Amino acid sequence: MSYIALPNPSLPGISGLLDYNKTTAQPLLNLAEVLLRGESTLSSGERELIAAHVSYLNNCHFCHTSHAAAAVAHLNCDISVMDDIKKNFVETPISPKLRALLDIAGKVQKGGKHVLPEDIAIAREAGASNRELHDTVLIAAAFCMFNRYVDGLATWAPQANEDYLEMGQKMAFLGYNRAR
Amino acid sequence: MSYIALPNPSLPGISGLLDYNKTTAQPLLNLAEVLLRGESTLSSGERELIAAHVSYLNNCHFCHTSHAAAAVAHLNCDISVMDDIKKNFVETPISPKLRALLDIAGKVQKGGKHVLPEDIAIAREAGASNRELHDTVLIAAAFCMFNRYVDGLATWAPQANEDYLEMGQKMAFLGYNRAR
Repeated sequence: MSYIALPNPSLPGISGLLDYNKTTAQPLLNLAEVLLRGESTLSSGERELIAAHVSYLNNCHFCHTSHAAAAVAHLNCDISVMDDIKKNFVETPISPKLRALLDIAGKVQKGGKHVLPEDIAIAREAGASNRELHDTVLIAAAFCMFNRYVDGLATWAPQANEDYLEMGQKMAFLGYNRAR
Repeated sequence: MSYIALPNPSLPGISGLLDYNKTTAQPLLNLAEVLLRGESTLSSGERELIAAHVSYLNNCHFCHTSHAAAAVAHLNCDISVMDDIKKNFVETPISPKLRALLDIAGKVQKGGKHVLPEDIAIAREAGASNRELHDTVLIAAAFCMFNRYVDGLATWAPQANEDYLEMGQKMAFLGYNRAR
């Protein structure tokens, strides 16, 4: 049970918190929408993988599993990818550029100063643009916020990957301003 | 020098990044505005102290010092408070409620799951409401994002506390949507 009384305690994870305070919900949803579904040379599937990767590193089950489900929806791939994210992509084929960006996102999760010039150089060598580097750092940073919001107030989360598939479809195709 | 080329490299910290990408800037600024200057039973000065405290724990000089300057502007107090934040408030008189909320913010900085029921109980005992607990967790979480955005892209920052006083006045009294 969450640390604060929510009007709809049945809503899991961030959903109950967004419902609790509409004033803070709006910029948070707008941020998720532009970061994950806005115009970008990174596909929404790639961006959702970055979000799910960081959320797993932050040990946030709700955010990891829901954004992994959104990635599965965008990429139209097997549900097993959701668990492969937890193993840092040993089975899922990902491009060298996405690998380098995921590694930068993992550094951001530890703290901004962990990102070193050599990490940026590796990503550039693999074809990453300024804008892709910017978006990767901001997506990773934003999930360090969302994850802490969700767990810092002790919201509840469904457990099984399958429980998140419909949510992932809505996040992917209806978007963050209409998914709830 | 920042990892990505910015149109106005003279703009320090997050300012150069907000100028680089207006699409992501808008929700970020709206979030800062509502969290730090929106309607709340916590004063803006108290909320800026929470932001500065978390930013110091994240080792983000730009965010720590600019939000400490905004706190000084709101509270109309001595500039020495900016350094006292780094010492976890040994000289600044703060209420038991704010002390408990700062401690929760420090737990959020480590990770959402670090916030324990007893931390919440101590804050409630000191008079914290549901909404104040919610806002404290979200402010602390948001600065875990802002700090990583600023440092993950290696932006530059003025060094001296005095260099931030005018910026703090603008953040406090013009706000986040008009401060730049």
